[in-house]
Amino acid sequence: MSTPAGDQKVVRLYPPSYDIRVETTAIPQIEHPDDAIVKIKLAGLCGSDLHTYRGTESVTTHFICGHEFVGHVVALGASFHAGVTGRPTLYSTLQIGDKVVSPFTVSCGECHFCRIGFTSRCEESRLFGTAVTAGGQAQYVRVPRAGGTLYRLSDISAGAAGQEHLGKEAIAKLADSSLLLLCDILPTGVFAAFQALNHPKTLPMTTSLPYPLSSSATNVASDISALHAQDTVVTVAVVGLGPVGLCACVSLIEMLVSRGLQFRVVAIDPTESRRAKMAAIYSKISDKQDQFAVATIEEGKAIVKKWTNGIGCNAVLEVVGNNSALALSYELVRPFGCINSVGVHGEPQVPYKGRELYDKNVSMDFGRCPVRAMFPMALDILLKRQDVFGAVGGDASLVEKIVSIDEAKESYDLFDKGKCGKVLFDPWV
Amino acid sequence: MSTPAGDQKVVRLYPPSYDIRVETTAIPQIEHPDDAIVKIKLAGLCGSDLHTYRGTESVTTHFICGHEFVGHVVALGASFHAGVTGRPTLYSTLQIGDKVVSPFTVSCGECHFCRIGFTSRCEESRLFGTAVTAGGQAQYVRVPRAGGTLYRLSDISAGAAGQEHLGKEAIAKLADSSLLLLCDILPTGVFAAFQALNHPKTLPMTTSLPYPLSSSATNVASDISALHAQDTVVTVAVVGLGPVGLCACVSLIEMLVSRGLQFRVVAIDPTESRRAKMAAIYSKISDKQDQFAVATIEEGKAIVKKWTNGIGCNAVLEVVGNNSALALSYELVRPFGCINSVGVHGEPQVPYKGRELYDKNVSMDFGRCPVRAMFPMALDILLKRQDVFGAVGGDASLVEKIVSIDEAKESYDLFDKGKCGKVLFDPWV
Repeated sequence: MSTPAGDQKVVRLYPPSYDIRVETTAIPQIEHPDDAIVKIKLAGLCGSDLHTYRGTESVTTHFICGHEFVGHVVALGASFHAGVTGRPTLYSTLQIGDKVVSPFTVSCGECHFCRIGFTSRCEESRLFGTAVTAGGQAQYVRVPRAGGTLYRLSDISAGAAGQEHLGKEAIAKLADSSLLLLCDILPTGVFAAFQALNHPKTLPMTTSLPYPLSSSATNVASDISALHAQDTVVTVAVVGLGPVGLCACVSLIEMLVSRGLQFRVVAIDPTESRRAKMAAIYSKISDKQDQFAVATIEEGKAIVKKWTNGIGCNAVLEVVGNNSALALSYELVRPFGCINSVGVHGEPQVPYKGRELYDKNVSMDFGRCPVRAMFPMALDILLKRQDVFGAVGGDASLVEKIVSIDEAKESYDLFDKGKCGKVLFDPWV
Repeated sequence: MSTPAGDQKVVRLYPPSYDIRVETTAIPQIEHPDDAIVKIKLAGLCGSDLHTYRGTESVTTHFICGHEFVGHVVALGASFHAGVTGRPTLYSTLQIGDKVVSPFTVSCGECHFCRIGFTSRCEESRLFGTAVTAGGQAQYVRVPRAGGTLYRLSDISAGAAGQEHLGKEAIAKLADSSLLLLCDILPTGVFAAFQALNHPKTLPMTTSLPYPLSSSATNVASDISALHAQDTVVTVAVVGLGPVGLCACVSLIEMLVSRGLQFRVVAIDPTESRRAKMAAIYSKISDKQDQFAVATIEEGKAIVKKWTNGIGCNAVLEVVGNNSALALSYELVRPFGCINSVGVHGEPQVPYKGRELYDKNVSMDFGRCPVRAMFPMALDILLKRQDVFGAVGGDASLVEKIVSIDEAKESYDLFDKGKCGKVLFDPWV
């Protein structure tokens, strides 16, 4: 149980901004009994890497970039040795050689937030690819609290009852480029869609029961009868078609179809190339033209108005992270609708007046996806939609290309300028 | 089927503000086939009547005040005649002589929002006691869309399975002063509490399942096990102990106890007399001192910190309706907690930065209670907690006194100045 000695190649960002260097540095070693060392197979370049790249996060020291990686465990700390008890299951079962993916943040698996599934607010949460925690754009990465953080792909039981064909063997066949989507963008999209469909404001449509009977713990009598089909069409707008927005759309449609719900989904983005990719992806998963539309902002408003007789959407997935997107979300949502925001927001005060929120009975969810807790659901969708998530390159893929880590500087530059889509780094070629 | 001819006594507000007059005017008559005329037994003076009283709603014409009333049906429009079909049940079953309560807003019972239970955003919603719709501080009131709006107390089956003792006979024994609480304040408190306990962010605590398994429609495998008791203590802060806040506290505790949940509730208000009333009410319903506290704002912050090891509450019920209360709610709520706001907010932008909401994964619900849909649940709680809701006068009652409608001017004045609690008007003495 030891990490190779010697040096490795890594991608570093130097302050204050735009200064990416591929350098050689020492391979990380176990520093704490809960650590694992992972040998990286592929690392992702993510839209949120651009925040630090552009200097908006006030970087003061260089660090190893990247918060998306898939690889194999090559070393484990003492906590993983036989005989250690009282730790989360993965501390006793994680083994050298296991294939793993990691959420973009550390989650200990042991604090209150980890135990209840809200893993992105782990009391020891740290973001990979920052000055505090070295990232995965490297040949090796040290993973703190690895028993809570890493998700083991070698021996898990994916697939719900009746879906065993989505189990171990199917997972073993998944390409690394596809697995890498589990680190951040796919679970975040799944989280947005899941929050929308499971929000109490949406439950009347998904359960065919009127509020408050639609909420699970209601057990009082009611004089209101079950809903008619005309009332249960779930209408959702997705605002923002970057990689997470695309994942949100695909996940949402998959959930709506698999639950047998009637729906209308409109996917909105002002950028033509993003809309084109969304349309190409949709053409892979359905030929029904009446339940899905790709739209500019103005087109989106008109479509929602037409579909809903002017009352608005049940839910709006906000996958941008600025006040324009929030303002548009308010405009699109219906009274008693919900805005599910997974966008990373900045300092401005949100653009809502209290009276507006009261008058429309708006509900809102903000915040970071608890990736570790969403892994099983995201893996399920990854397996079901390999037609979308298995592709590399082409009009309808989320991943544009896999390049050598030596091309990191150029890739950051092109990605920053919108001249290329999602790029993955292979650190061994 | 006809309304008495002649005149009645009413309470009118004259613009621009503070000008309450008890006057004589014609008894209202059926104007539309969906109308009912209700002979008022008792009418309430509510905190939100003070908005118009103080002139903040820009009143330009006099009108009959009041949006809380209980009474009997004395006339019905043609829609209620035998043989009319295709209308909500109450249009065929509502009869002359029925005892009824009304939500504070009209709900047609037929539009999409009424059908799905979000009755406070009925497409024909109108607030009683405004220039648009004459209110209930009178001897008679015309109720538009009465088949959707009125809730019939004469022949309903309250009480869930196993609780038939809370049925028809128990309802018949309820005092009018108690039934009047159903018009607004009790359902609004119930709504706040119900939203908090049924929010996806609270469900891990109430179901003992980790997120996302805690949400109902999840059917994928998970490697996370059921929660331990230490993780499932539901911690709630109630901000604001006006009449609705008191109702929210009592309803919340009733729900927590009846579901067998572990909990800690802190009830916060800066006003000493309100805290004293809350403490007196709590002493009627429980002698357990470890699960409930009444507190000033600073005491409340300290209690939440102590109870939760500094992480904050699962839910905050915001029952005030201003930015100070919203700011306090953010401070008290934990990461992945929810703020359930039933306060009526004004024009200011809400005091939250996008980054704060993201960083704490905050969820929020805003808006007006769908009273018509909440009636069965509110009636259930009203019956169970007659020790609180049945009282008139005394330290622990929600209703301070019942006075003649002739005393309306003086009552508005005292209520506005905080010199008296909730007053009900009897229009027949």
